[in-house]
Amino acid sequence: MTANAKIARRPPVLAIIGATGAVGVDLLRCLERRRFPVAELRLLASPRSAGKRLPFMGLPHVVASLGEESFAGVDIALFSAGSATAKRFAPVAVAAGAIVIDNSSAFRMAEDVPLVVPEINATEIARHAGIIANPNCVAITTAVPLWPIHRRNPIQRIVLASYQAASGAGAAAMEELLQATRAYLDGRPYEPRVFGHPAAFNLFSHDTAIDPATGYNAEETKVMAETRKIFADPGMRISATCVRVPVLRAHSLAITLTCARPIGADEVRRLLADAPGIRIVDDGASNHFPMPLEASGRDEILVGRIRRDASDDDGRSVALFAVGDQLLKGAALNAVEIAEHLL
Amino acid sequence: MTANAKIARRPPVLAIIGATGAVGVDLLRCLERRRFPVAELRLLASPRSAGKRLPFMGLPHVVASLGEESFAGVDIALFSAGSATAKRFAPVAVAAGAIVIDNSSAFRMAEDVPLVVPEINATEIARHAGIIANPNCVAITTAVPLWPIHRRNPIQRIVLASYQAASGAGAAAMEELLQATRAYLDGRPYEPRVFGHPAAFNLFSHDTAIDPATGYNAEETKVMAETRKIFADPGMRISATCVRVPVLRAHSLAITLTCARPIGADEVRRLLADAPGIRIVDDGASNHFPMPLEASGRDEILVGRIRRDASDDDGRSVALFAVGDQLLKGAALNAVEIAEHLL
Repeated sequence: MTANAKIARRPPVLAIIGATGAVGVDLLRCLERRRFPVAELRLLASPRSAGKRLPFMGLPHVVASLGEESFAGVDIALFSAGSATAKRFAPVAVAAGAIVIDNSSAFRMAEDVPLVVPEINATEIARHAGIIANPNCVAITTAVPLWPIHRRNPIQRIVLASYQAASGAGAAAMEELLQATRAYLDGRPYEPRVFGHPAAFNLFSHDTAIDPATGYNAEETKVMAETRKIFADPGMRISATCVRVPVLRAHSLAITLTCARPIGADEVRRLLADAPGIRIVDDGASNHFPMPLEASGRDEILVGRIRRDASDDDGRSVALFAVGDQLLKGAALNAVEIAEHLL
Repeated sequence: MTANAKIARRPPVLAIIGATGAVGVDLLRCLERRRFPVAELRLLASPRSAGKRLPFMGLPHVVASLGEESFAGVDIALFSAGSATAKRFAPVAVAAGAIVIDNSSAFRMAEDVPLVVPEINATEIARHAGIIANPNCVAITTAVPLWPIHRRNPIQRIVLASYQAASGAGAAAMEELLQATRAYLDGRPYEPRVFGHPAAFNLFSHDTAIDPATGYNAEETKVMAETRKIFADPGMRISATCVRVPVLRAHSLAITLTCARPIGADEVRRLLADAPGIRIVDDGASNHFPMPLEASGRDEILVGRIRRDASDDDGRSVALFAVGDQLLKGAALNAVEIAEHLL
């Protein structure tokens, strides 16, 4: 009997790998909030976090140490533990009969791994061979608002600049931003531990490795490749500049896009108004547009500043500003939505 | 005798209007640092600030209240007091025989007012009719690194997204960012007074008025129009997304540009390496790129992340990241450089 068939018959046994991390905690909250049916919940993390208790549906659950034997009987394993852990343990989970939904970049570009944003390509889920990948948070925040446009009038070019929150680098990075800022305000020195650069009242190019051949960093390369894969459009021209800003937990994107045919701001607004997962916040009169503070804790991606691109010369370019909670739609929520499609 | 001829014969009598503001204070420091010759320094501000003392060359100078009689004998009046004050008092200063260098947007787009970045169009200064305009800080930070490219291989299109510091909204805004952040960390509420939105760990679309016809805000409209005027290229296609971020005093820009002819990243790096007012910070191996923290207090605009635009399809597009101290090259320093050209 396949894993899928098993799940269909009864509530699944669920494992969360990296349960104590920033995404792990939000996974628990999303599962609760969406009343995801769970026969058993197994929380797994590094030995350092083993023994911790995390609440789920009002009851404390003890975190166990992740190991080779962790996956016996597990139906769905939600990985939010980084690439190295995913590479080592996802195949173990699959061998034990689980379906893995991985939040790391380890398998995203593999041919036989669906890269899924349910609003866009839920049908891809069915072709999995044990592992389904959850896309990069910037790729999700880009793809959700652009898809309703792309399916009507193919987007040929995307130029985006990101304003990425500390949450993308995990709970320790969020804490570092807070501590570094408090030290700055108190006039104390602070030595960065998580980020390569000072976080307080500063910003910096995303501190993943630069590919010397292209000049793009690993985050940008992921965003570009993954957006193409999600849209199943390998020829789409896209460029990203990924920047870390002193914001706690929502990513913002300034996007300029060029379609195959002419398109207006009103048409984009209409296409997005009814699209799933999007909330338009575009009130020019009161200068109210998407902000991280208002996107944090929300499931929807906020979209505003929708306007004809002023550098456009043939009516095919539009600019917009999108902000999404990196830990929710950018990570935990999207993973839970994928899991819901497995039921 | 013309004002220019007077100045040439002896050190000028200098007035600073808005002396107690963020730009005013940096004007004093720039004049000192560059040993600008001054026969007499007159500090002017609103009645609220009159009586304050500001140091210049080691001596306290008393701030006087700005009025109709303030400009008798003044050779050069450096205005850093906002549009309304400039509109009212710049003509008064000119009538009294002074040359005005105005940091506000009041006169920038007027036909008979040169809009000057000395590295680019110092020759424009000579055609002034009493008023010379200092460009918008984002326009300066855009124009300085793009000019050496534009003069060799005309830039046809610019798409930019800004990450603007609190300093652009003045000293009170910088103080608000600090206070709002401290309140956030202490768990206290904070009611924004300067900005329309919460500043702590948040960002927002630049809170100038949106033009309902274009969807662009006043800051973006200035950046686009002024860059065209500085480059004397009214047909240049440019679009800006201006965003306020929780940074204290340097503006960052993610820029994608398209030239008339093919251009490579190495060529851009070569063109910028010897250009005035620019410092290349582009070390991919150590992930060291321009940051507000390192640009603050520096005269040069830092430029890095120079790379072929990944969304390019014909070799004519390049991406880069520029960071400049908004109060120095973005305001005070550029104004003092213009004044130096008057001597």
